[in-house]
Parts: sequence; structure tokens; C-alpha cells
Amino acid sequence: MKRSSTSKNKSSNKRFFIHPAALIETKRIGKGTRIWGWSHIQEDVVIGEDCNIGEHCFIENGVRIGNKVIIKNGISLWSGTILEDEVFLGPNSVLTNERFPRSGFRKEWEGIRICQGASIGAGAVILPGVVVGRYATVGAGALVTKDIPNHALAYGSPAKVKGWMCICGLKLVFKNKKAKCSCGRKFGLKAGKVILTAE
Amino acid sequence: MKRSSTSKNKSSNKRFFIHPAALIETKRIGKGTRIWGWSHIQEDVVIGEDCNIGEHCFIENGVRIGNKVIIKNGISLWSGTILEDEVFLGPNSVLTNERFPRSGFRKEWEGIRICQGASIGAGAVILPGVVVGRYATVGAGALVTKDIPNHALAYGSPAKVKGWMCICGLKLVFKNKKAKCSCGRKFGLKAGKVILTAE
Amino acid sequence: MKRSSTSKNKSSNKRFFIHPAALIETKRIGKGTRIWGWSHIQEDVVIGEDCNIGEHCFIENGVRIGNKVIIKNGISLWSGTILEDEVFLGPNSVLTNERFPRSGFRKEWEGIRICQGASIGAGAVILPGVVVGRYATVGAGALVTKDIPNHALAYGSPAKVKGWMCICGLKLVFKNKKAKCSCGRKFGLKAGKVILTAE
Repeated sequence: MKRSSTSKNKSSNKRFFIHPAALIETKRIGKGTRIWGWSHIQEDVVIGEDCNIGEHCFIENGVRIGNKVIIKNGISLWSGTILEDEVFLGPNSVLTNERFPRSGFRKEWEGIRICQGASIGAGAVILPGVVVGRYATVGAGALVTKDIPNHALAYGSPAKVKGWMCICGLKLVFKNKKAKCSCGRKFGLKAGKVILTAE
Repeated sequence: MKRSSTSKNKSSNKRFFIHPAALIETKRIGKGTRIWGWSHIQEDVVIGEDCNIGEHCFIENGVRIGNKVIIKNGISLWSGTILEDEVFLGPNSVLTNERFPRSGFRKEWEGIRICQGASIGAGAVILPGVVVGRYATVGAGALVTKDIPNHALAYGSPAKVKGWMCICGLKLVFKNKKAKCSCGRKFGLKAGKVILTAE
Repeated sequence: MKRSSTSKNKSSNKRFFIHPAALIETKRIGKGTRIWGWSHIQEDVVIGEDCNIGEHCFIENGVRIGNKVIIKNGISLWSGTILEDEVFLGPNSVLTNERFPRSGFRKEWEGIRICQGASIGAGAVILPGVVVGRYATVGAGALVTKDIPNHALAYGSPAKVKGWMCICGLKLVFKNKKAKCSCGRKFGLKAGKVILTAE
């Protein structure tokens, strides 16, 4: 295990920042990414550009992370997890990859996929194999037991779809299956799906 | 970032204890406070006297902490959070400060206030902007979505008021709007509020 | 506090592995056990053989841990906790030992017992004094407020018994009070209790 230091990165490679108290084994870290103290990232992990990975995190072999992903403190990501671009994981959110773990019995893992621009609330728990759709928002403390549609706002235990979210993170209010966000984006609701109609 | 060591504090400043594996940037730490390993406290943080801050914590710029506050392991506190005197935060409790986070979209934060003597159960999650009243108790694993009254016992997901608590942390049983705790304190219930009538 | 190093253990004592970033004060660690980075284990802790203790864990004086126990990342275990052989604690699961904590008021603790072969899901929260039965499975994100029977599958907030589990970690389907797992084990259901009838 290599212990990367700030100064070393600053001198030999200014492309990204690794806190001296982090343990980084992968070499595949994109430009502009920052990784904070007491976090451990294994060798077979790919991390995109301009990400921010907090303190006390663990990222296991086999995880793939896109660009501009924000991972707050205290999060473990297990083999098979995929975070697409612009994902936000709130502090102490819990992603799993094994449905019925047992000491002494090895099982297949089922990775979670968090799609582009989705946000996972602080302390939320996500079951193995779940897909969280693009620009969805999972509420703090939610328990996500099944897939969440694109743009959905889902919360509760188990999490249920309670509304819809804009790309920018504001709630959408639909009238006659149309919504205009205060950020200017327009959406339609077709067959229960939110579709961007104007940016 | 300065890495404070036990010995250094012991020799030059015996007023408080900082574990050698902690990263402490603030200078405003009260007498008798102890801070344990792998915790990081930023520069613009004020911590009172006789506090105990556990391992694997993170305290962001802009947090204010009173006297005799107990913060157990694995807790992140974000800008705007206020912990009054004698607050207790159970292990892995989760305090937030942003309602709808999105990577790439900056929003205003709403700080949480935990009032004097209140206790937050282990693994509880508290939404942004919430005020937890004086001597309230939030149950373990609760999801707190709105303000909790003084002396309330609240739990569940979302948390609801289920009873009332004494200053000393025992449950109060009201008869004819009066309660006497086994610790000797007496309380009245007026217009749905608990009021200390004799200490 | 002694900081044990990998190399030291490798040279003087090859029986177990301690990551160099861990702080280990107990000497009672069984053969084949591995303890990972930024975890702290106090002096009066007993840990059996072939255990795996993840990163960012804290184990307090007075905890007893059997053989082949798996403790994932970010878990604190408090005085009085007993983990029997082959227990699995999912990442960020939260075990407690104090029912109504208050800063300044010391109370008696009530330890949790997790019985042989039981699995606790990621992010689950367990109240003080609870006993989780042998080969039970507690779902991810569950809040366990009372004892869980042997072989039960329990989840929800509060957790309720929703089914039954084999020793191997697969669900049991009972017909006429008999179940045969695909692993070959057979069970009977007598007076609401699951009993192994053939291995």
C-alpha cells in the first residue's frame, strides 16, 4: 500500500490533490479531483475528473466513478458500484452490494448504479442491485429497496416516489403534464416519465 | 493543516487533550475538552469547555459548540450547525445542512440547532434547518423532518412526539398535567409545553 | 496507546494482521484475525480467530467477539456488546448500549448480544439490550427495538419478523411446517420456532 503525500503530488503531479493521511492505491484519478484524509481507495478503482471524495471513505476494487462526483464523509463503496457523472452522495449514506451476507458463505454481489446527476441524501441506505435514475433525489435517511425513476424525488422507509426534480436540484410542479423550473428548464410528463423539453 | 500532538499539548498547554491522530485547525477550544483520533476540526470552529469529541468526526468551518457537549464517533457537522451546552450526539448520527444538494449547483445552507441538554440517538438523521428543543430526546434511527419541542421524546421515521423527558434523561409520566421525576424535579404541562416547576 | 505495525507483527508474531494505521491496545487477538486501518481497539477487548475488522471502527473496553466474525467499516461497539461466532455486521451498522443518554448524567449500559451466525444489515440500528438470535438476518437500514428470534428475517422501522433464514443465508420457504434449503439443510417449524432437522 502506497501512502501518497500532498507534497509529492504537488511536486511530481499537480493534476489532483490527495491528502497526506489518505491511502491511495489506484493510479487512475482524473485531473482536478481531491481526496481527503483517512480515506482508502484500492488499486482497481477508476475516478474521473473534478471529483471531491471526503474523509473516512473506503472505495473497493471494481468501483467506477465518473466526473464531478461528490462523495461526502464516511462512505464505503463496494465492488460493482457505478457512480455516473455529477452524482452526489450525502454524508454517511450507505451503499451495499450483497443481499444476504453470511460469515463463511460467499455470495455473488449485485452492484448499485447511481445515474448521472442523481443525489443521495445523508444517511440513506440503498439495497444491492438498485438503479437510481438520472437527476433523481433520494431523501435523507431513506431506505431504497427498488429502482428509482429518472428525475424522481423519493423518500421514506421503504422509499417511494413523492415528486419530481429538475436537473438543477429544485422541485418540479407539474400542471397539465408540463413544468417550468425557476432555472428556466422545461419538462413534460409522458407515460409517467419526466422528459426535458427545453433547456 | 497543523497536526497537534498529545505531548505538545501536555507540555505547552495542559488545558485540553487532542489525540495525536487528530487534525485540529481551530485555536478556540475550551478547557477540559478532549478530541479523539482521526477527527478533523476546521479553523473557524468554536468549541466550549469539557466537551468530548469522538473518533472519525469532521467539524466544518462555521460550527459553534457549547460546553459539556458529547459528540460520539463518526459524526460530521456542517457549516451553520449550533450545539448548545450539554448536547449529546449519539454515534453515527447524521446532521445535514443542505435540503436538495446537486453536484455543480451551489445552494444556501440551513443550519441545525440542537438546544441545551438535548440528546440525539445513535444513527438518527436530522434534516436541514431543524431546531431540536431543550432537553428533548430523539430516538435512535429516527428521521427528524421538523422542529422538536422542549422536553419531547420523539422517534420514528418521520419522528413524532411520543412522550416527554426530564432534564436528567428519564421519561416523565404526567397525571393531571403534573409530573414528578424520580430525580426530584417537578414539571407542569401547559398548552402542550413542559415547564419545570421545582428543581 | 501502542501503535502496532504490520512489520512488527510479521516479524515477532505472524499469527494475525494489524494494519499500520490501526491503534490496537488489546493483546487478546486470535490467530488469523485481520484488523484494518484507522480502527481503534481498547485494551479490555477479546477477539477470536479468523475475524475481519474493517476500517474506521472503534471497539470499547468490555466487548467480546467470537471466531470468524466479520465487522465491516465504520462501526463502533460499546461496552457490554457480545458478538458470538460467525456474526456479520454490515457497513455503518449502529449498535448502542445506553437507552436514554444525557450529557452529565451517567446511566447503566445494556449490552447487545448478536448470537451465532446472525447477520446485521448495512446501516441498521440496534437498541440497547437487544438479543439477535442465531442465524437471524436483520435487513439493511432496519431499526431493531426488541429481540429477534433464531433464524428470523427481520426488517423495517421498527423491525418485524418477515420470514425465515437458513444457516447458509438463503431464505427458507415453509410448506406444512417443513422447509428444505437448496444447500441441503432441512428445517421444521415448531411453536413458531425454526429447528434444524437435517444437515
